[in-house]
Parts: sequence; C-alpha cells; structure tokens
Amino acid sequence: MKELHKLLDRIVQRVNINLRELEFDVNPLVSKLIPAGQMTKFYAFYGITPHHSLNLVFKHSNLSGSYFLGKVRVTNSLLYKSDIRGDELKKNGDLFQYQDFNIPVDQDEEISIDDSFLIKTLVHNYSHDPETLETFFIRDTVSAHFANIHGSPTDGSFLGPFATVDLTTIRDCVIGAYSYVQAGEVSHLNIEPGTVWVRKPGDFNFMYRYPISQLSNYVYFAAGSPPQGVFMDFLEDRKEAFQRVFSVVNIETPLSVPPSASLDRFAVIKPKTKIGENVLVAQRAFLQNSVLGKGANAQENCYIINAKLQGNNVTAHGAKIIEADLGKNVFVGFNGFLRGRPGARITIGQDSVIMPHTIIDVRNPLTIPSGHLVWGLVQNPKDLQTNSMSLKDFSKINSRMCKGAMLFEGSGGSFVSGFQERIHHILEANGAFYDGKLKRGHAQRNQNISFNTIQPYPEGDKEGLYPTIIIQP
Amino acid sequence: MKELHKLLDRIVQRVNINLRELEFDVNPLVSKLIPAGQMTKFYAFYGITPHHSLNLVFKHSNLSGSYFLGKVRVTNSLLYKSDIRGDELKKNGDLFQYQDFNIPVDQDEEISIDDSFLIKTLVHNYSHDPETLETFFIRDTVSAHFANIHGSPTDGSFLGPFATVDLTTIRDCVIGAYSYVQAGEVSHLNIEPGTVWVRKPGDFNFMYRYPISQLSNYVYFAAGSPPQGVFMDFLEDRKEAFQRVFSVVNIETPLSVPPSASLDRFAVIKPKTKIGENVLVAQRAFLQNSVLGKGANAQENCYIINAKLQGNNVTAHGAKIIEADLGKNVFVGFNGFLRGRPGARITIGQDSVIMPHTIIDVRNPLTIPSGHLVWGLVQNPKDLQTNSMSLKDFSKINSRMCKGAMLFEGSGGSFVSGFQERIHHILEANGAFYDGKLKRGHAQRNQNISFNTIQPYPEGDKEGLYPTIIIQP
Repeated sequence: MKELHKLLDRIVQRVNINLRELEFDVNPLVSKLIPAGQMTKFYAFYGITPHHSLNLVFKHSNLSGSYFLGKVRVTNSLLYKSDIRGDELKKNGDLFQYQDFNIPVDQDEEISIDDSFLIKTLVHNYSHDPETLETFFIRDTVSAHFANIHGSPTDGSFLGPFATVDLTTIRDCVIGAYSYVQAGEVSHLNIEPGTVWVRKPGDFNFMYRYPISQLSNYVYFAAGSPPQGVFMDFLEDRKEAFQRVFSVVNIETPLSVPPSASLDRFAVIKPKTKIGENVLVAQRAFLQNSVLGKGANAQENCYIINAKLQGNNVTAHGAKIIEADLGKNVFVGFNGFLRGRPGARITIGQDSVIMPHTIIDVRNPLTIPSGHLVWGLVQNPKDLQTNSMSLKDFSKINSRMCKGAMLFEGSGGSFVSGFQERIHHILEANGAFYDGKLKRGHAQRNQNISFNTIQPYPEGDKEGLYPTIIIQP
Repeated sequence: MKELHKLLDRIVQRVNINLRELEFDVNPLVSKLIPAGQMTKFYAFYGITPHHSLNLVFKHSNLSGSYFLGKVRVTNSLLYKSDIRGDELKKNGDLFQYQDFNIPVDQDEEISIDDSFLIKTLVHNYSHDPETLETFFIRDTVSAHFANIHGSPTDGSFLGPFATVDLTTIRDCVIGAYSYVQAGEVSHLNIEPGTVWVRKPGDFNFMYRYPISQLSNYVYFAAGSPPQGVFMDFLEDRKEAFQRVFSVVNIETPLSVPPSASLDRFAVIKPKTKIGENVLVAQRAFLQNSVLGKGANAQENCYIINAKLQGNNVTAHGAKIIEADLGKNVFVGFNGFLRGRPGARITIGQDSVIMPHTIIDVRNPLTIPSGHLVWGLVQNPKDLQTNSMSLKDFSKINSRMCKGAMLFEGSGGSFVSGFQERIHHILEANGAFYDGKLKRGHAQRNQNISFNTIQPYPEGDKEGLYPTIIIQP
C-alpha cells in the first residue's frame, strides 16, 4: 500500500502547487476522504466494441469504475469509482469549428489523465478547447464526489462535490460544491459553492448563486469528512442496488428493450420500468417504476424514479427526477435534482429546459408550463415565478436583466438558441432520431459492449495500484 | 467472426503440416467441436500477485479461462476455457540441473503459445527441456478436452481428450485419448489411445496399454462430435456448479480456511467440506463432502467427492476421487479416475502411488495396501492383483518384467525413487511442509490473487478475438 500513499501525496502536492496563488490547500479536503483500503476493493472495467478506437494505456495508476470506451492514457492517477467515457473522441481528419476557424484534427483524439485524483467523478469526452483538439487532458486535478468534467481539458484544479465544468478549459481553479461552470477558458478563479455560471464571451453571461444556507441542506463539504446533505443521503440510500450489477460478470436484462434502444449492463433497473425505441440508458443510471418514451436518454449517474418521460427527453449526467411527469423534449441538465412526492408531483410541459444544477424540491404539486427555462432553487410556485421565464421572453433579452438571484447580460436569443442546439446535438448523438436506417447514435451503437474488469495488486507495496496495462486493437 | 474462423483455419493448417509424415488430419477432429458462438461467450482471466513476475502479452488471440500467473505471451491462438498457469517459471540466475549439466538460466522464463488451439487444456509451467530453458512454448498444437500439457515445450502436435504430456518435449506427435506420456523428447510418434508410457532413456521404461474396448466406455473420441463416455458424463453432470463461481466478480469463501491454506476463488466447494492446514485447492477444483488433511493438495480440474484424505495427499490435475479413504502421502496422478460407491468405498493405505491415468472403478469395497504402486484399469480385486505391486518389490526389478498389460524394463529402483522424489517436490512446492515460517509454497503464496477478466470483441469481423493486451509490472 506504500506506493498508493506515495501517489496520493504526490498528486496533492502537484495540485497545491497549481493552486498556490489562490492559497488553497487540497490536503485536508482529500486526506481521509477515501480510506485507502477501499481503493483496493473495487475493480476497474473498460468497454470494447468494434466502433470505438482502442488504445488504452494505464501506468502505475489506481483505477476503479471507468469504462474508457475509446482511446485513453492514464499515468499516476487515482480514479476512484470514476467513469471515463471516450465515445465521442474526434478522429483524424475531422474538422473542428471554432469561431471563424475550421481546424482539421490531425490525429485521433485521446484522453490523458495525469497525476489526478478523481473521486466518483464522471469524465466525458471531446475536447472543446481549440488549443488541444487531439488531447483531452485532466492533469494535476483533484475532483470530489459526483463532479462532472465534461468536454474539457482541466489543469491543476480542484472540483468540489457535485460540481460541473462543462465545455470549458479550467486552469488552476477551485470550483465549489454544486457549482456549474460553462464559461470558456478560465484561470486562477475560486468559484463559490452553488454558482451557476454560463458565459459566452462577447455574447452573453448568465449567473445564479444559491443561497448558501439553503444549499448546505442539499450539499455541504468541509475538510475532514465526506460531503453531507440530501444529495449524499439520496445516493447512499440507493447504493446497495448497484452492488448486484457490479458483482456479476454478465447480467441478464430484466426487461424487454426495443432493438433500437440500449440499456447498459451497469445500469440498475427496478420493477415496472418501460423503455421505448431509441432510448439510451447509460452506465450507473438508476430507473425505477418509470416510463422512458421514444428517444429519451438517461445518462450516467442519473436517477429516474416514479416518473414518466414522454420522449426525446435528456436526463443529463447526475440528474435526479423523482415523482414527475415530463412532456416531450424536456431537458434536465447536469446534477439537476427534481424531487416531487407522492401526491405532489412535478409536471413539466414540453420543450422546457431545466438548467444544469437546478433544484426543484416540492411538497405540493407544481406545474412548469411548456417552453420555459428554469434555474436555481425552486421549492414552491413563488420560487418558480422568480426562477423561471418562458424561453420566448428570455430570447427577447438583449442587454441586462436581474431576476431574484439571477443576473443575465447580453443576448438572450443567443443563450436560448445555444441551449436548444446543444440539446438537439445530444439527442442526435445519442440516437434519438434513428429511423431504422439513418441517424444512428449511441443508443444503437452501444448495444453490444464487452466489459473487461481489472483488479489492482492485492497486497505488498503496490497494493491498490494496477500494473501497466496496454490494450490495442 | 470472420477473423476467428480464419484463425482456426490457419492453426489447423499449420498443425497438419507438422503432422504430414504421420498422415494425420486434425481438421475433422476439431471442426464443429466447439461452435464458434461459444467462443465469444466466455471470458478470460488472469491472476496478479506481487509474487509472480508479470509480463502478459496477447495478440489477436481468442482466450477464455486461463489465469496466466507469471509471464506469458500468446499470439494467434485459440485457448478455449483452458488454464495456463505460470507460477513456477524459472528466474534469471536459477540453475537448471540436467544429467551432469548445471545450466544457468539467463532470463526469466516465459510461456509462449503460438498458433495453438487448446480446448479446456491445462498447461502447467516450467520447461524441463534443457534446450529451451527460458521459453515454454506450445507452438502449432491442437489439444482436445481436459488434456494436460505439463512442464513441456510442445510443437506441431495433436493431443486427444484427457491425454497428458508430462515433463516432455513432444514434436509432431499425435497423442491418443487418455494417453500419458512422460518419456523425454519424442518426435513423429503416433501414440495409441490409452497408452501409459513413462520412460527415462537409459534407465527405465514403463508401458501399459488399456484394452481399447474397455477404455471406450470411459472415453471415446472420433471425428465430428465431442468426446463421449463416463469421463465426459461425469464432468457434464457437474458443469452447472461452476457457473456460479464464474458468474460473480468476487466470491465469498463458503467455509473457514486455515491461514496457512489457500482456496482458489474459482474452485467449487460443496457442503460439508473441511480444509486442513497447508492445503492448496486450485482453480476449477471441485470438493464435496470431503476432508483434506494437513498438506493435502487438490490441483486444477480435480474432483474430490465423499472422500477423506489423511494429509500430504497429492490429487493431481484432472484426477477424480469419489467415495474413498486415502491414507497419508497417497499420491493420485493426472486424470486418475477413482470411483468407489456408497457401501463400496475405495481404501488406499499410506504412501501408495496411484499412477497417472489409472482407473479404479469398483462396485464392491476395495482395499489397496499401503506402499503400493497401482496402474491401469482396476475394477475388482483380481485386476488389482494384476495391476499393482508393492513399491518395495517394484524397486527390486532390475531388468524386465511383464505383468498383465504392463511391461517394465530397466531399474525399478530408479523408477520408484523418481516418483517419490517428484511427489516430495510437488508437496514442497505447494507448501505442504510450511511450518509457519519456512517452506512457504503455493498454498501460502496464492492466498491473495487479483483476478482480472477480459472479454473479446462482441461483434464485427473480430468477434470472439481479443484486442492486443500488454500487461507489465
């Protein structure tokens, strides 16, 4: 176990050097967060299909979780039950559009994770940084529970629990718990917990901040103990259900899945769940007594419980939808927490957009009209009034607007159409529009994946570390 | 699946080229033997410990089963549910004694399996060929169900079901079903089914041949269908019990195991089994309602059912012991089939040696006195009379002797002491003599193995083949 400890120390030291200007010490936050014994107990796994380019190299790392579809390289990292998903990596010859540039990609993109400690973090593929089109790196970074690193190089940063960095290059940053940053390249920033920040430089800027006292009820993180609050309790209560899917090598599908849909073998499916055509259910998704209409997708770490989704719904990474009815094309962003209750369901009209990191937590029925944008903390109709707007009205903003704790500057039209285009892209990439011949996406391509499980050294100095593993076509 | 078929064709062609002088065509024997669909269903696994040198490379192979402990290299091979065990490989600097030579090993020994098709074959480590001390190869070889390749380079050969080549280099040979060959280097031989041949050139020669009509009842193999007979039925009846141990990633030990003993997680343990100190239970062993006394070992693919073993017993690869009581130090060789029945138990006195490929199959109680050597087919006391001798008397042979279907030439003393030394070596290597500090063996070293499972491409041209996988420390 000696080398595992050395590796952790080394990672913490490197991250601290990067964060020295912010005077931020990662050490008390991560030390004792995951007992080292835990890190040897789980196993890592990676998926193999003929559709994803294979070039996996792990060296002196600790890995668990992770399906690593597509190219990957990991060196001196600790990935504790994290998912690294490389199924949209750019290929040699692809064209990457950035502003007015059309940049040809000159080699297959690869994920590279160096000196990082990612704790139950989801890393998604596709570098949006025009400077590193061929490498998706997350060097010298510590990321806490259930954070998302999506489409972004990251460097020398610390991400708190349930934080998300999206389509963003962040360098030497501290991202607080449950903060969402989609802001282009940022450096040397310390983002307060509960910040939702969407910026397109020169075009628009959206900023919302959670009232910290209320956020603490949902997630609270301080040095010396794991994150606490409603989010952690919710996950903890459902942890056991995942044990079975991880304890068997091959698993039977518990329900019938249309030939155009795909259900990941590491998802948990509880009784009375129905899956429509073109549906994608990703790894570690949790579905219970719910209906997923045609083209809906349930992404990694999402929970859909006692809910009905009409179709073409995106339930993004880490989102939870409980006791709710969603119309067609409703989008629920990263780490959204939508908790209705029996007799107090949440109803969302079609085409509405629930922004990433939105909490809708009600004790009486709540209806969100169709075509609305919702953000922040919504516990009753009054909150909804403050924290939502019709997309149509939002599109009309062209300078600046304050509404509750939200500040918007710039073009509302750009903001709304940017969101809508992205939702369309996600549905398309996931195969929601597959017509039996064309528009094939992940739902059709991910149906048949081999999963390979690897375990670390069981004892000795290298306990908890994996040997060097190189996998090529 | 195209490439899997190409690979099979290529292997068959290469083996046939090697066997052309014997006018032997492997093709009808292997074609349709394992439906190709089967070959994509199982997974391969390899063990990792800090005690075994790691250098695994697989290229364009199909692998399943296999724990590959220690160094290995596999290219263009089909290993169908075969076990390749490299836990006694020589190390750089070891001295290898051969006749009057003391040959230093100049690099770590590695297993290398090229263009081979091994069907449920057990391959054990340690090349005894002084010409290839550093490589244990099995190039261009097809081997059928439950054959053993033990301690031997092999080349361009065909091994029938339940055949064993032991401590032997065989080149361009055909080894018939249930034949046992331990004969030093042999080439261009076609060994009839049911031949038990132990030879030390210039020292002794032991030869027994099963009456073919009676052997057919136990194992019969002809082109176009899998092997048939009592042996296959026996295994088929117990196949299901293995499904559970292979379907879960981590398995709980169902009984208490002394700290000096080890029980492989891929063994099947049925109720009322007891395991003493220093016991080694290997992968795919099957134990039911049996007692294994101190220092006993149950090797790969062995079955011990309703039996009591007093201690320091070797139950070699593939041996079956049913309804029997074995005194201390009783040795049961490879693929031995000892079948007592309720009320008709087999009792074997201490220090007796049951030769490899011996069948003792009784319907009335049978007692084998202590210190005896038993070979061939024994179904009643009369057979025992013909097919056994006290080790003391056997040692006295110094020229030639015929007994039933057995012919012995040379020094009985050498033959007996060779056996006894080997049994002692096996017990020592397996840790039977561990005293809490010294004489550590496999039983103590194999307690904590990480198992890594790998699956082949699930579809496409490469269906059933594994990607290239390189694993280093």
